[in-house]
Amino acid sequence: MKKKVNLAAKLASFEEYFSPKIVGEINDHKLELVKVKGEFVWHSHPNTDDFFLVLAGHLTIQLRDRDIELGPGELFVVPRGVQHCPKADDEAHVLLIEPIGTPNTGDAGGELTATEERI
Amino acid sequence: MKKKVNLAAKLASFEEYFSPKIVGEINDHKLELVKVKGEFVWHSHPNTDDFFLVLAGHLTIQLRDRDIELGPGELFVVPRGVQHCPKADDEAHVLLIEPIGTPNTGDAGGELTATEERI
Repeated sequence: MKKKVNLAAKLASFEEYFSPKIVGEINDHKLELVKVKGEFVWHSHPNTDDFFLVLAGHLTIQLRDRDIELGPGELFVVPRGVQHCPKADDEAHVLLIEPIGTPNTGDAGGELTATEERI
Repeated sequence: MKKKVNLAAKLASFEEYFSPKIVGEINDHKLELVKVKGEFVWHSHPNTDDFFLVLAGHLTIQLRDRDIELGPGELFVVPRGVQHCPKADDEAHVLLIEPIGTPNTGDAGGELTATEERI
């Protein structure tokens, strides 16, 4: 990495929901910012854990047996293979970490699958 | 991960400087919180990048050719093999990500080398 990343500045540069933007990398993992509003899709990642850190707003990570409610400064790691579905009633901003190449929709696919994009 | 992690609550549970505490894991990496005040030690990690996200305060990551100045909500990844020395004039709180087993002092060792500790 050549320059620091200001998360707020990066977040101000795009508006789409459920479309993670890559802002950096650590080893074989991508650091992504995403804006969430509404409900995503139930999915799991068979081969990787899934890191969520809420930067602004409130995010619910629905699991099959419970909900994880995250506010700013709260993080949760969904273990590999565990089905989950993020949702937010109002816009939330989230830092994600996953291995490079991991699709956002995991094993579910579908129209919400995003192309990896660096900003 | 069974429960969410509230970063502020975890940070309130310890006081030592330069003693990272593990609060979670993603794949083979540890998620650590550290309080920084003063100057650390020059070191590098030959086999891993080194992730810093400032949560509170201001952190300077000294590189051999320049300084990276980070405030809250700013992150930087030191590439593997690059010598660096973090410092903070006043207390700063930082989220770190490194592979499990990575010593905080990298190739430098010495008395600031911390034992991996989960909180």
